[in-house]
Amino acid sequence: MPSAASGYAAHSAQTPLAPFSFERRDPGPRDVAIDILFCGVCHSDLHTARSEWDGTLFPCVPGHEIVGRVTAVGGEVADLSPGDTVGVGCMVDSCRTCASCRDGEEQYCEGTGFVGTYNGDDPVMGGHTLGGYSDRIVVDRDFVLRVRHDEADLAAVAPLLCAGITTYSPLRHWKVGPGHKVGVVGLGGLGHMGVKIARAMGAEVVAFTTSPGKRDDALRLGAHDVVVSKDAEQMAAQANSFDFILNTVAASHDLDRFMRLLKRDGTMTLVGVPATPHPSPAIGELVFRRRQLAGSLIGGIAETQEMLDFCREYGLTADVEVIAPDRINEAFDRMERGDVKYRFVIDMAPLRAG
Amino acid sequence: MPSAASGYAAHSAQTPLAPFSFERRDPGPRDVAIDILFCGVCHSDLHTARSEWDGTLFPCVPGHEIVGRVTAVGGEVADLSPGDTVGVGCMVDSCRTCASCRDGEEQYCEGTGFVGTYNGDDPVMGGHTLGGYSDRIVVDRDFVLRVRHDEADLAAVAPLLCAGITTYSPLRHWKVGPGHKVGVVGLGGLGHMGVKIARAMGAEVVAFTTSPGKRDDALRLGAHDVVVSKDAEQMAAQANSFDFILNTVAASHDLDRFMRLLKRDGTMTLVGVPATPHPSPAIGELVFRRRQLAGSLIGGIAETQEMLDFCREYGLTADVEVIAPDRINEAFDRMERGDVKYRFVIDMAPLRAG
Repeated sequence: MPSAASGYAAHSAQTPLAPFSFERRDPGPRDVAIDILFCGVCHSDLHTARSEWDGTLFPCVPGHEIVGRVTAVGGEVADLSPGDTVGVGCMVDSCRTCASCRDGEEQYCEGTGFVGTYNGDDPVMGGHTLGGYSDRIVVDRDFVLRVRHDEADLAAVAPLLCAGITTYSPLRHWKVGPGHKVGVVGLGGLGHMGVKIARAMGAEVVAFTTSPGKRDDALRLGAHDVVVSKDAEQMAAQANSFDFILNTVAASHDLDRFMRLLKRDGTMTLVGVPATPHPSPAIGELVFRRRQLAGSLIGGIAETQEMLDFCREYGLTADVEVIAPDRINEAFDRMERGDVKYRFVIDMAPLRAG
Repeated sequence: MPSAASGYAAHSAQTPLAPFSFERRDPGPRDVAIDILFCGVCHSDLHTARSEWDGTLFPCVPGHEIVGRVTAVGGEVADLSPGDTVGVGCMVDSCRTCASCRDGEEQYCEGTGFVGTYNGDDPVMGGHTLGGYSDRIVVDRDFVLRVRHDEADLAAVAPLLCAGITTYSPLRHWKVGPGHKVGVVGLGGLGHMGVKIARAMGAEVVAFTTSPGKRDDALRLGAHDVVVSKDAEQMAAQANSFDFILNTVAASHDLDRFMRLLKRDGTMTLVGVPATPHPSPAIGELVFRRRQLAGSLIGGIAETQEMLDFCREYGLTADVEVIAPDRINEAFDRMERGDVKYRFVIDMAPLRAG
């Protein structure tokens, strides 16, 4: 017997988000019911709500950077209890049987594909999944993370569930650590976490930004050095020196300028998919230094737990601006202009109070 | 006191190769003087002779797939003697002090860059280096390989010095072996060696060709399966199944059609640099499966020796058509049309007899 939930939804690509009432399923034996405390505002939320990528299902309740409190658990859930603080990220289910799921890489599920926290096919209720811009959610235990950060940090923990894991996973996969020189391209929601995490992993971190004004901020976030990527001289001085570059910029741009900065055998990993293609990369930049251009998508569930625990150990959270739910449309507009340091997070308290 | 040598040279980008007399240096203390028996005909020879890449220095004596016999050694060369069979590949020197040289990856020399066997800056004689389309060559011991194949195989060994190492090195670097499914794209001079070597390394090998007529030949060379890359249905059947793809096609083509065939975490490595860019690869194909697009350049000297010994152990040589030196222009034309299975090799005996 489903029960009432409230949130903010887009009813079409052209209309702003508005208050929305809907139903969540009652928790099944393996489910966890969660009161949502905070939800981060990711660029994907905006792209999906405005149907800038194809395939948005309306009404659309975005949100996949969720921190909340357990209110009930199903009979087979032994390791979580009401009152526990938990997180939910970009996925709420996957096929669980394909090679990637068996390897704990559910984000690459080759069976059904993973079930997105919003805009996915809801395997229980039918229709499509509705995300974290809401007061409550019910999620299978296997896709619920434990949050061990202090209570005061919970708003700033929310963005770890997407921005954190999207940067942590490639940094781990390509074995970034002490002795490595690592670049982070783009200083937005993802990039600012990439700088913090790469620094905590022990690497020498260089932040690349198009905005000279972000220099002091990048240093404060943990970068050892900052390079203004439009400055050809600054860029040339970094040639052939990086072991790894994490490129968080989704907008179409010249990849070669960064590929040239990699040492022999270095890798640049992209975590964003551009709406219009990047200029075709120069293959000579790959061949003459055995460099690699790679991609990476969020991270697996076990790895997300590892990331949360890593961030707690190193005292890492996102830099956030907390907003009330009714300011989401304004936040979308400001995010689109890059006017946020570095993530909006919705405090859901007003939804419950209302 | 330099001594006379004869060979074939292009005197301009527009003129065919013609007989050419020039001088080789007398062997210094660390040099090896070599009578050239055979020299393979690589596409790079044609591109350079016709100045299709910028920067050809004329007169140009191409050739960097050299097998020959030692005629004299310098006083400091203890491990080679007159009569020994040796090989020389794409490099005749490098800075020897940079990180890549110290790592035995002289092909990526970051100091001076490696000295090409032809069209490089000659560090001893001045001017530019002159390659293997000639009767004799003098090379520093450190860039001379031992050839242990049977005498009857020497013509077919010559192409190993470029086509062999260019395919062996990435297959080794990305750890191809038993249990791996490996694709080889393009069935030319490089690709036919890629198929043979990947098979000998124990992988399951699939050859990709645009020519249905090459099917039987690919199977004979060692492929377990052959896919006609123009056939969308055949291609779709291979989706997400490859651990590694060695792409030997330098001509501009759609990389995505092959990227899609890689498993999660698979790598496609390009060994050719296109004259006009490939269509820009779809970044989604990288991100959604954590795939990698990489490049690789020939191989280091120690690895070239390892490759020659590996090929001898597994009985591998190139499929060659042996020609006399005066047929080189005809061979260039036929190679340009893809009319060779799979490598022309010049027998230098007529040069000495003449």
